[in-house]
Amino acid sequence: MSAPSVSPVVRVPFAELQALLQRILQRHGCAEPVAAALAYNCASAQRDGAHSHGVFRIPGYVSTLASGWVNGRAEPQVSDLAPGYVRVDAGGGFAQPALAAARPLLVEKARKAGIAVLAIHNSHHFAALWPDVEPFADEGLVALSVVNSMTCVVPHGARKPLFGTNPIAFAAPCAGHDPIVFDMATSAMAHGDVQIAARAGEQLPPGMGVDAQGQPTCDPKAILEGGALLPFGGHKGSALSMMVELLAAALTGGHFSWEFDWSGHPGAKTPWTGQLIIVIDPTKAEGQRFAQRSRALVDHMQEAGLTRMPGERRYREREVAQREGVALTEQELQGLKALAD
Amino acid sequence: MSAPSVSPVVRVPFAELQALLQRILQRHGCAEPVAAALAYNCASAQRDGAHSHGVFRIPGYVSTLASGWVNGRAEPQVSDLAPGYVRVDAGGGFAQPALAAARPLLVEKARKAGIAVLAIHNSHHFAALWPDVEPFADEGLVALSVVNSMTCVVPHGARKPLFGTNPIAFAAPCAGHDPIVFDMATSAMAHGDVQIAARAGEQLPPGMGVDAQGQPTCDPKAILEGGALLPFGGHKGSALSMMVELLAAALTGGHFSWEFDWSGHPGAKTPWTGQLIIVIDPTKAEGQRFAQRSRALVDHMQEAGLTRMPGERRYREREVAQREGVALTEQELQGLKALAD
Repeated sequence: MSAPSVSPVVRVPFAELQALLQRILQRHGCAEPVAAALAYNCASAQRDGAHSHGVFRIPGYVSTLASGWVNGRAEPQVSDLAPGYVRVDAGGGFAQPALAAARPLLVEKARKAGIAVLAIHNSHHFAALWPDVEPFADEGLVALSVVNSMTCVVPHGARKPLFGTNPIAFAAPCAGHDPIVFDMATSAMAHGDVQIAARAGEQLPPGMGVDAQGQPTCDPKAILEGGALLPFGGHKGSALSMMVELLAAALTGGHFSWEFDWSGHPGAKTPWTGQLIIVIDPTKAEGQRFAQRSRALVDHMQEAGLTRMPGERRYREREVAQREGVALTEQELQGLKALAD
Repeated sequence: MSAPSVSPVVRVPFAELQALLQRILQRHGCAEPVAAALAYNCASAQRDGAHSHGVFRIPGYVSTLASGWVNGRAEPQVSDLAPGYVRVDAGGGFAQPALAAARPLLVEKARKAGIAVLAIHNSHHFAALWPDVEPFADEGLVALSVVNSMTCVVPHGARKPLFGTNPIAFAAPCAGHDPIVFDMATSAMAHGDVQIAARAGEQLPPGMGVDAQGQPTCDPKAILEGGALLPFGGHKGSALSMMVELLAAALTGGHFSWEFDWSGHPGAKTPWTGQLIIVIDPTKAEGQRFAQRSRALVDHMQEAGLTRMPGERRYREREVAQREGVALTEQELQGLKALAD
């Protein structure tokens, strides 16, 4: 989904955009390392054309920080539980700095044990998930992550929303090629994309959601105002969404998507839940062969007629952005500058 | 999907059915422990109403064993690679005895390290996947397994089939309740269910597959004869199917779904690929609380109007079968008896 372009598009160098976002986040209550982690994530999403998780998110970050709902200065507490198990209490702060704090230990364990898991709880995740997993693939590791969010999806066969959009992200190295990375909401559509469609006055394809009466609708506003999303792929997507609740919340000690009450914090936007990341070292069984096999898979998918690998659009947009700067509208840039001062 | 019932239904005690299936498998080339593992799996599927993986599969087992394609007497070689990593070379035999051979070490590692992975390669998997994961949940562990199969699914956006039906199975303990277990093909439909529909002369719902010309069809025969299945849920299910190829084949050292050539073995039916199983010990982070949280999830899903949990039909059928015996048709029973002598 492209960003609405009522305003002319400008291009800003990545480092400059990142610095601007970091300034905004620090000005609105984030400690320096927290702001740095979130700004990098958000600028990366904008750079890669994932607009629903790019600068579009910044007003939400500012609003949720101002509401006192999330602690922008939380210091993650890392616990070494077992040879393959790391736990982090994010202290009511964001998940990304919690991951950053635990990452070296997680990678060390994955390389030693062959597999390791990071369980983050008491955390807020308001961002794209692929930036959390892609760097593992850059280091030759395979990573799988799930995060639950906030009630907005009706389980298949149920009457009322319960699950969050509950994304699953996966990353694997690939020889002589960009890593294979995908990041999918287990809802029929990502919540941010519904918001963008509503803002742009666009209709959605059928099968995405229901209105406040539980009736199918293609109107994104009806989904956002008392309605709900559906899982992707019927009962199968719904079962995966349930699995995400179990792995990201029950296993980590985080909240389920329906358990937090932000009514005392007007302006709160971020789900206070948990996140799980599993990292596997493919060299344990297959040495350096895994990345070559991964490449063989890509080659065969292309031979079967696939013109675009999952995640490939991001790499193409990234390439353009590295050459020409990150695209955003003049209006968005002015809005960001106003938030920075 | 119910079994076609042109013939009257009879009910056989589980142990008796299992013994009969074991006798058939031993008579047709399986060593005793191999036959025992497969018979237990197959009788369990029949007992639980999963007919496409029940006794319906037996002629396929017999045929594939007779063809010399699979080694019914293979002895799995277990390697202890790292504190969280077990590998098994199934020796061109079935995956279930390989899992059985590695299972004690896998569970020991998962309990010690908090997480462990089992990579099975050089293996044939021709059965339901949930019997592989459910027993871990019975022991209080969380398990996730993937297995790739044989080319019959067109990747989303491609022209030709490449992936297998590539199922994902998941199991988690649940306090005072049956474990939460699901087993889903990442194809729109399981291959066995297409075969059953073809045998019964039934049409399929739209969106399941294409014919030999790549055109959408609801005719199961057209899918089986030169056509192909589609992934479930469009590009998302397709990305998951790709992930299964990477985890079950590339990571384990097994074949991709398109890599084996059984043309020299007329009657061969079983995909010669790999399987990955990840086991997590939820007590590491959450003590005994995980199963209670899992139960809270079930309770909330029911409050949201869900009348049937994923996997619940199996438990209901199992209960009836434990009381009254496992249901199969008189014709199926006579067919089995003929194969046993």
